[in-house]
Amino acid sequence: MTVAHLNAAIELSRSELREFYEDFAHCLDTESLEDLPGFFTEQARYRIIPRENYDAGLEHAPIYCSSRAMIHDRIVAIREAALYQPRSLRHFISGPRVLETLADGSFRTTANFLIIESLLEAESQILMVGEYFDEIERVDGELLLRDRTCVYDNYRIRTTLVIPV
Amino acid sequence: MTVAHLNAAIELSRSELREFYEDFAHCLDTESLEDLPGFFTEQARYRIIPRENYDAGLEHAPIYCSSRAMIHDRIVAIREAALYQPRSLRHFISGPRVLETLADGSFRTTANFLIIESLLEAESQILMVGEYFDEIERVDGELLLRDRTCVYDNYRIRTTLVIPV
Amino acid sequence: MTVAHLNAAIELSRSELREFYEDFAHCLDTESLEDLPGFFTEQARYRIIPRENYDAGLEHAPIYCSSRAMIHDRIVAIREAALYQPRSLRHFISGPRVLETLADGSFRTTANFLIIESLLEAESQILMVGEYFDEIERVDGELLLRDRTCVYDNYRIRTTLVIPV
Repeated sequence: MTVAHLNAAIELSRSELREFYEDFAHCLDTESLEDLPGFFTEQARYRIIPRENYDAGLEHAPIYCSSRAMIHDRIVAIREAALYQPRSLRHFISGPRVLETLADGSFRTTANFLIIESLLEAESQILMVGEYFDEIERVDGELLLRDRTCVYDNYRIRTTLVIPV
Repeated sequence: MTVAHLNAAIELSRSELREFYEDFAHCLDTESLEDLPGFFTEQARYRIIPRENYDAGLEHAPIYCSSRAMIHDRIVAIREAALYQPRSLRHFISGPRVLETLADGSFRTTANFLIIESLLEAESQILMVGEYFDEIERVDGELLLRDRTCVYDNYRIRTTLVIPV
Repeated sequence: MTVAHLNAAIELSRSELREFYEDFAHCLDTESLEDLPGFFTEQARYRIIPRENYDAGLEHAPIYCSSRAMIHDRIVAIREAALYQPRSLRHFISGPRVLETLADGSFRTTANFLIIESLLEAESQILMVGEYFDEIERVDGELLLRDRTCVYDNYRIRTTLVIPV
């Protein structure tokens, strides 16, 4: 492996990270749920958690999955239920950042997310806003999430079901 | 033409696409309407269409232009009318993507858009949110839209006139 | 100094500018106020001003600082007061652009900003939306603001205190 290849393997530019985040978001916006597990490692953890709990170190999360298989099951089930009423979701991502390169070569990263929800017969509204805290591995050149924690700032979620973020 | 030049001609990076989308948005945000036709090919089509119609394959569109000249006329007329009441528009673009390179070397692309409207004596609000579906050509090195379809998720538009998107 | 180095010194790509803007925003979102003065030159001016005043050439600004030291004092004071009621802020930046390279090698730049505020027991809302008008110098390879003017479109600010933008 040349130095250039090695660097490609151990580095993560912000623009590559931005595109990765936007790919994930696009997958949700287009309801391509079958593609979503492909963003995660097999043993990945996926959580959606209110900021209050996160800051207090509390583990309670409206969505908590501890493997890719569980992510698949939960996300599809939740999304299908949540979409019973026709709606469009639209993600806006800003400020992707590599916070740290871990000893094993994976990355701790973050970004801001904003999700706008449009329902029939209602104004478009902010569904959720917050921050991703992720751990990302590079496997065979591809980025994969081994831990995604979506920390939302909202006081409450306006729907009874939390959709994937 | 070297291979490098050829690649430059036939490829479109996501960061170049992002900048193109943001240039277009900036043109609208700054009300530089005289510059807008310059983003289109002469025979370009430009549509703004609600998602419901788009998904159903219906052609009805609040704005439908079938040439650059028509784009110029319509956009200026609509914008001037819509701006009779002083307002600021601000675009936020996320997730630009090249969906496909077509046989003739042009690109099918998409991105999410969010437009925030600020009026006197009112809270700033979401005016429109949705997705671009575009076809883009590279002409003499410059990107040009030959087809822009703005599909908005909103149930309704809060103004009587649809502004360019 | 080679030509390549010289170009690196005098040029500013849009992706570098984007990252600079997002770094600044991240600093505010994470309340890392001690890091904020480091984004400015010593003699920097920092203003937050409503669009109406800005367009009319009026100087009245809810925040006006004329040096890095003053920025530090004001920002910390204002932010601490404004944060008495727990809240989360989240910045979304779109459309960074280099408008002009000035004779001394510094840059006039702009970008759109959107700040979403989340309070306890309230829906997340648009706190502020508008445009940065900046002058940026490159000092020892690092970008520094020597003038930041945040022009907000909102008719009014929903809080009694203007937070840094």
